[in-house]
Amino acid sequence: MLQSEWLNRVRTANPLVLNITNEVTTQFAANGLLALGASPIMSNAPQEMDELATIASAVVINIGTLNMPQITAMLAAGKAANRAGIPVILDPVGIGASRFRRETAEQLLSEIRFAVIRGNAGEIAALAGVNWQAKGVDVGSGSADSINMTDTAAKRLQTTVFMSGETDIVADGNRTAAIRNGTPLFPHITGSGCLLSAVCGAFAAVAEQQFFSAAVTAATAYGIAGELAAQGLMPTQTGTFAVRLLDSLAALNIRDIQQSAKVSL
Amino acid sequence: MLQSEWLNRVRTANPLVLNITNEVTTQFAANGLLALGASPIMSNAPQEMDELATIASAVVINIGTLNMPQITAMLAAGKAANRAGIPVILDPVGIGASRFRRETAEQLLSEIRFAVIRGNAGEIAALAGVNWQAKGVDVGSGSADSINMTDTAAKRLQTTVFMSGETDIVADGNRTAAIRNGTPLFPHITGSGCLLSAVCGAFAAVAEQQFFSAAVTAATAYGIAGELAAQGLMPTQTGTFAVRLLDSLAALNIRDIQQSAKVSL
Amino acid sequence: MLQSEWLNRVRTANPLVLNITNEVTTQFAANGLLALGASPIMSNAPQEMDELATIASAVVINIGTLNMPQITAMLAAGKAANRAGIPVILDPVGIGASRFRRETAEQLLSEIRFAVIRGNAGEIAALAGVNWQAKGVDVGSGSADSINMTDTAAKRLQTTVFMSGETDIVADGNRTAAIRNGTPLFPHITGSGCLLSAVCGAFAAVAEQQFFSAAVTAATAYGIAGELAAQGLMPTQTGTFAVRLLDSLAALNIRDIQQSAKVSL
Repeated sequence: MLQSEWLNRVRTANPLVLNITNEVTTQFAANGLLALGASPIMSNAPQEMDELATIASAVVINIGTLNMPQITAMLAAGKAANRAGIPVILDPVGIGASRFRRETAEQLLSEIRFAVIRGNAGEIAALAGVNWQAKGVDVGSGSADSINMTDTAAKRLQTTVFMSGETDIVADGNRTAAIRNGTPLFPHITGSGCLLSAVCGAFAAVAEQQFFSAAVTAATAYGIAGELAAQGLMPTQTGTFAVRLLDSLAALNIRDIQQSAKVSL
Repeated sequence: MLQSEWLNRVRTANPLVLNITNEVTTQFAANGLLALGASPIMSNAPQEMDELATIASAVVINIGTLNMPQITAMLAAGKAANRAGIPVILDPVGIGASRFRRETAEQLLSEIRFAVIRGNAGEIAALAGVNWQAKGVDVGSGSADSINMTDTAAKRLQTTVFMSGETDIVADGNRTAAIRNGTPLFPHITGSGCLLSAVCGAFAAVAEQQFFSAAVTAATAYGIAGELAAQGLMPTQTGTFAVRLLDSLAALNIRDIQQSAKVSL
Repeated sequence: MLQSEWLNRVRTANPLVLNITNEVTTQFAANGLLALGASPIMSNAPQEMDELATIASAVVINIGTLNMPQITAMLAAGKAANRAGIPVILDPVGIGASRFRRETAEQLLSEIRFAVIRGNAGEIAALAGVNWQAKGVDVGSGSADSINMTDTAAKRLQTTVFMSGETDIVADGNRTAAIRNGTPLFPHITGSGCLLSAVCGAFAAVAEQQFFSAAVTAATAYGIAGELAAQGLMPTQTGTFAVRLLDSLAALNIRDIQQSAKVSL
């Protein structure tokens, strides 16, 4: 369910979101979290994960540029967060691209309980082992196929799965939601998915275990921030869009979400 | 003392500033140094520190995302710079967040002589072991408490300490200065502190051992660049502010500093 | 030879460009490749290089912030790409600054066959062992000296060498070209050279082994994108320029290239 008022919870609580993430989009994710109202901390050091994961209100694990010490840090942080009851988000970036990513993701899934897993259609299918044929299917259209696929993935992975695309789908095994907010500019900037996963972390931090709603709210709020950022821009203004997205995340308010939300269950 | 004409020294000498820094704000710091007129080089490789530290005119060490090879590089660079008489700046990012950061900072302090240490109130208090109560104290107001705290830290650490905040305080054990330039937008962008430490490095490089003045001048110049960048922006335009801050650092001139400086001793 | 229509090949084929690159400019390079129409992937993991290098259409190796696992990754990716007939680009960032960079570059040159090597005058001279005197020579002017130096480097390195500067020079041992597109703002933003090397990768990916033409086309397209981005900007608007450069790369079309190209052979 959409919980637009959780935006104010984020801004009041300023939850500390620990990101163990790739080195490509680190600053963009940190700036986006700050703009939204959360408090980001980025680290890959196994030596401090026990401490950081327990002072954090959410942990976001992103496998975009893996290395061995980072995997150690991910496992330590995920387990510490699980013990402390702190939600953990997984972003399986490019999991289909290499065995190293697949095997790491499998290890993470086997040792850590995730509150939300956020990826694109190909990543979610690969992670859940769904034999999903991309050809001819518009993964972003919210078609029966993509809803079914997300639902199947949620059942197999036994958690909330958020498949982002032109239409975002959220499923937790019992419920599904389709969110039709967003802009075609999103896939043209590096890190738009990584930041979305971080935003899921910020909403999960204030969701009191309602992670399906956290994912739906993150999808909607982020999609609308993207719409506002894209207003008046040409489709080629990708650099400007990335800058304005940060402005929009900071300017976003509950009324924007309520007026523009396109969520269907 | 404010030495506004040192801005032109930076632009004439283009001092090479070696940054051993976190992976979150690397490009932002490099672009900010370039905009100011300095010449940045970023490296974490122990293998090249002896060479880089001695061709550099300043070394900036930032502990925001530590790892073991990087710590080795920091120690090698700091010692080589000390031997060569090149100023070294320390930014103890998030030192209160973990024992790993505290112990690394203590090792750096015990093996390297720093020209300037720049951090926020919590970081400076933690680094200096000052039993400083945050509650009820506006750390940024330039109150007696925050001036005393910075002075105490400078005496304990035996160097120039620059505590940044709404009001910046610089102390070297003999003198203190309060700088009231800046904008509320600064804490809303990731890396504003990291870049400020790098800017301290650029001014220290041309300061001929007058590091108190270097820190005061860096605080003032950077604060005024922030004011100019924030002109006409809404408080939510954080993405735009980060871009304009680079423009302002490049456009800043001595007259801007002389006309807008709010420095009290 | 300038092949302006290859811009459309890039946009149609969306070649996957694997970047093993420095940690300073990673996101900027990725966003620039996306804007141009290519598909970037950034990785430093030796564990996945065999797989990534063979699904990629070009590999870009940049030595800006070296570490040991990354060097292993570079060697693995370069050799795998060579075996698969995929072009490999080298950007010898700051090779003159340390023995570590020089020795790494020499090892890369001895074990990998590069399609294009792109650097500034100092980097190309150092890499090729050309005894080149900078004093009194305007390296960017397209003078006889800089053309001769690039030609000598191409002959020694037995590949296409692209020396970028105020005037870009491309040589392959048989031919030389001088490209006079660009803007004085380029050297004022970090990563403008790194992104240019990545753009060479995108054009090399669609060049069917004509790497001299790929480099000439990359130089021209990138230079013109810079000119369009700089239109109406003051020389101090470096932050804004970096954002607009991404917009311009996305907006660039074949007619822009044909109308504004300043290529002489």
